[in-house]
Amino acid sequence: MGATTTAWGVVRVGDDPPQPALRLGDEVVLLEDVEGPTLNPLIELGPQAWREIRSAATRATERIALADCTPVLPIRVTDFADFYASLEHATNFGRIFRPGTAPVRENWHHIPVAYHGRASTIVVSGTPVRRPRGPIAPGVLANTGRLDLECELGYVCGPTTAGPIAIDEAPEHIFEPLGPFLGKSFATSMSAWITPLDALAHARVRPAQAQQPEPAPYLVADDPWLLDVELEIELNGEVISRPPSTGLYWTPAQMLAHLTVNGATLSAGDLFATGTISGSRHGTHGSLAEHFGGERWLADGDEVVLRGRAGDVELGEVRGRVLPA
Amino acid sequence: MGATTTAWGVVRVGDDPPQPALRLGDEVVLLEDVEGPTLNPLIELGPQAWREIRSAATRATERIALADCTPVLPIRVTDFADFYASLEHATNFGRIFRPGTAPVRENWHHIPVAYHGRASTIVVSGTPVRRPRGPIAPGVLANTGRLDLECELGYVCGPTTAGPIAIDEAPEHIFEPLGPFLGKSFATSMSAWITPLDALAHARVRPAQAQQPEPAPYLVADDPWLLDVELEIELNGEVISRPPSTGLYWTPAQMLAHLTVNGATLSAGDLFATGTISGSRHGTHGSLAEHFGGERWLADGDEVVLRGRAGDVELGEVRGRVLPA
Repeated sequence: MGATTTAWGVVRVGDDPPQPALRLGDEVVLLEDVEGPTLNPLIELGPQAWREIRSAATRATERIALADCTPVLPIRVTDFADFYASLEHATNFGRIFRPGTAPVRENWHHIPVAYHGRASTIVVSGTPVRRPRGPIAPGVLANTGRLDLECELGYVCGPTTAGPIAIDEAPEHIFEPLGPFLGKSFATSMSAWITPLDALAHARVRPAQAQQPEPAPYLVADDPWLLDVELEIELNGEVISRPPSTGLYWTPAQMLAHLTVNGATLSAGDLFATGTISGSRHGTHGSLAEHFGGERWLADGDEVVLRGRAGDVELGEVRGRVLPA
Repeated sequence: MGATTTAWGVVRVGDDPPQPALRLGDEVVLLEDVEGPTLNPLIELGPQAWREIRSAATRATERIALADCTPVLPIRVTDFADFYASLEHATNFGRIFRPGTAPVRENWHHIPVAYHGRASTIVVSGTPVRRPRGPIAPGVLANTGRLDLECELGYVCGPTTAGPIAIDEAPEHIFEPLGPFLGKSFATSMSAWITPLDALAHARVRPAQAQQPEPAPYLVADDPWLLDVELEIELNGEVISRPPSTGLYWTPAQMLAHLTVNGATLSAGDLFATGTISGSRHGTHGSLAEHFGGERWLADGDEVVLRGRAGDVELGEVRGRVLPA
């Protein structure tokens, strides 16, 4: 049986305004009764409504061909937190960028480390990525030479809720995971199609790595899980890596519990991502720095495609081409 | 002559939906023709429209008393960048938190350092601030004991523009500066009233500090300026400090040019802030850590008021009370 895609999105059909939609494989059901022009109002309705609307749309006979509509950025991203949840990636990067010191800092094992990103830099799959520039030495502004990609899994959250969110309630606050991510602080590409968490129930697995030392109680779940998604990174038509999603150290529920532990509000359209997912072997790295050991970076014209699949459920792909500065 | 306030805001009157408004002293003109429920659509119209709408509203005879309306958060904050632009503050904090090392890191003088904040944590003046909690040691979650305030100036930006923004064009992309800020990553209070940059033309002064070494060309303005705003921090009814806004090392135009140098889009409702403003003498510090030398922090029930005034123009105040965790 071939893979199928069940996913939320927002599409343009002809000159009509953007419309929330449910994608079912190669077909799309327009959600005429759902307020647009983003998925944020739908996210605000909560899990029960998501299930009912999805169930009704799945039975709808009026469908249009995927090829006849143009997907747009499906959410207004209200905040964007990027975690650093892969121990292998943190270790590899520590070795590359801080040689001679402990590759992973001591607090890395105590809390899921994250940084806030710029929500307005999120772009939809297919958007070309212009090479950025920045200060590279005192007084010197230059185009970025070592342009990299990062393969991540993203999670869209909501509805709006005052924090803190208890770890065992976290899944109720995750709208859905995205397709893979192509991330850097100047541009982060996300899939146009957002897979319902419910549609990935079969992909939940226990984390492969034990957490030592045991984290604080607010980070300990009754039944911890990660999503087993087969990821792949394609560079100019060739698959160069398959990062192992089940090797992440920190789980999405831990990330969300940590994000809100200080009482921070979670809002509909909040986005967090795992950070680069890497294994320790060649062919499992989530960035070019690790894969090519610093010998090759993104060149103008390069095209990157990230894909994810869990059993017969295919996540929306992420595609981006590098434009000159 | 007494001080006056000319400022944009959004108010509720009775049970009506929130409405953009222009405040003129103790009176408010409702901007019936301006799309709400935030100032973001107005910001998107650009500087020429801001001036025309403000000019027309200033002549309007139909006004309501400030006391008869309730101001709400005036913008939907699309992104929030918090800079670290005061050399005295950076020096004081370096001495307190990294004793025995150089108080300011070498790159601090090369670029305006900033971090991304969580846009959803911005609250309007008057909103109580609940004491946060967080991990304080491996495995230990506790209420924050050393709760501080930070006095900053904030700048609201727009309309939406692709970056980079050249430093000499920066003022055209700043909608207006806020009243003072009460900032921390879990909650940042802003004034309900946003003063037009045009209304502060008389408050532009050349920065008091020379920049050595000279920064990169994209950070060098033809005619650099800072706003001369008399700031004050009031704690439980007593003014404890008057931070010097003209002592900031980095200017707002430098902050905006740096924020967008990599090509990042600026959107209507983008907010950036100076970071804590401090002088070197007692009575000029912008945080309790500096003012009390670590001997006193915010206690439950404490009320903080931040005020700003430039000549006869009074910026909207920021007020917040600390609630127990």
